[in-house]
Amino acid sequence: MDTFEKLKKAQAKNSSILCVGLDVDINKVPQQFKSVPDGLLEFNKSIIHSTKDFVCAYKLNFAFYEQYGVDGYDLLKKTFELIPDNIVTIADAKRCDIGNTMTGYAKSIFDYFNADSVTINPYLGKDSLDPFFSYKKKMVFLLTLTSNPGSANFQRIESNGVPLYKHIVKQSLGWGDKNNLAFVVGATQPEEIDQLRSMAPNNFFLIPGVGTQGGSVEAVVKANANGPAVINVSRAVIYASKEKDFADKAREKAIKYKLSFM
Amino acid sequence: MDTFEKLKKAQAKNSSILCVGLDVDINKVPQQFKSVPDGLLEFNKSIIHSTKDFVCAYKLNFAFYEQYGVDGYDLLKKTFELIPDNIVTIADAKRCDIGNTMTGYAKSIFDYFNADSVTINPYLGKDSLDPFFSYKKKMVFLLTLTSNPGSANFQRIESNGVPLYKHIVKQSLGWGDKNNLAFVVGATQPEEIDQLRSMAPNNFFLIPGVGTQGGSVEAVVKANANGPAVINVSRAVIYASKEKDFADKAREKAIKYKLSFM
Repeated sequence: MDTFEKLKKAQAKNSSILCVGLDVDINKVPQQFKSVPDGLLEFNKSIIHSTKDFVCAYKLNFAFYEQYGVDGYDLLKKTFELIPDNIVTIADAKRCDIGNTMTGYAKSIFDYFNADSVTINPYLGKDSLDPFFSYKKKMVFLLTLTSNPGSANFQRIESNGVPLYKHIVKQSLGWGDKNNLAFVVGATQPEEIDQLRSMAPNNFFLIPGVGTQGGSVEAVVKANANGPAVINVSRAVIYASKEKDFADKAREKAIKYKLSFM
Repeated sequence: MDTFEKLKKAQAKNSSILCVGLDVDINKVPQQFKSVPDGLLEFNKSIIHSTKDFVCAYKLNFAFYEQYGVDGYDLLKKTFELIPDNIVTIADAKRCDIGNTMTGYAKSIFDYFNADSVTINPYLGKDSLDPFFSYKKKMVFLLTLTSNPGSANFQRIESNGVPLYKHIVKQSLGWGDKNNLAFVVGATQPEEIDQLRSMAPNNFFLIPGVGTQGGSVEAVVKANANGPAVINVSRAVIYASKEKDFADKAREKAIKYKLSFM
């Protein structure tokens, strides 16, 4: 089963397009989990246990793990192993390099971590993506439009009246198909989600930026128009409480978000 | 001493602008080094020992290490520790993420690995770079123009008659100064090095693509016009021989390249 199928099945089984981002942070977890890697691994285990029936995917952003060095890298590997087989894993690594070298990152993410999907920065062009596309059953999310203020600096630069991020979608649609090519589209710009949905009606969108980052759920859901999507929430779910009830509160928040995306 | 000063000093001491890329690959090292992490660490130790008097910097591309999982990550840490204090380290990680998250990568690269400098993908804009710029003594190389065919896909898209990679240089010159802001400029395009040199006369350029990738040394050196630069060679130095004489051959190649850059 390829990732596209797996994602569709997970969404149907749990009636959910919610992805929870496991953004580990030793300063934000409850007191008893403040150690690396053991404490944070136990924290992730609790969060996964309490939310796994309400999500279609978990997103692991490598930055949060790499800040803890080799122990964090070990934690990352062990967290991937904790995720149930029927839930999709997104390696949010935002890697890029030239062709020959990119093969190393592809091996890391698809062979070593055995992730179902990955986020990639497309700035280096087609041959930099090919090593990832060569894994036919996996899914590649290209960074298209991000949810931060700096997205205005380069992503929105216009060429022939068309912003760069649309050039990325247009060109890359020739490089993959709906089964392996997907896009990261920041939730702070609903009208842009709407436009990109018209350009790529059948490709999955990973939509971050709802929750702590402040994107409006209603506007995003409307703009996406029931296209294939995964909406990510990280901190607003996993750090819903710092007390003993942290796992219950995370479950409550996951259910709340899941329902709001319907 | 900041990285800018350290790099100037290393270049003066060794009369060299050569950077050697320690692109570890178990399929390319001599037989006795084919194990991770121990064999590859010994290989790196030998290469560093035989070339350290002829380089100004070593570049560690994270992809080559991450392909070996947590053992590779450990190897990466130990390789950083092997590099003499007077030689600059370049963490060629090409990271990117939004502001809050990018702090994790900055901690990884500057605190954990204690690298002197880093390569960053600027696609996410200014706020994504700020966590790296906040380390005032370090140097940030922005990916500007890469040496692969895919550089044509997006890097050369024109807005108001100016290619994207020049917009990146122009905007980012307002975000840092010559001490902390530098650029990666692929060596396969000498005339473009020449143009970028005019735009940023005082900033360091990291120029990869000479050697196995086929950029012409003479054309590159001429185009750079004695601007502050580091020219990287990886495979053509470290895999100069697979036999017992591999370290001697690497030294010979390093000296040859060093002299050709003068």
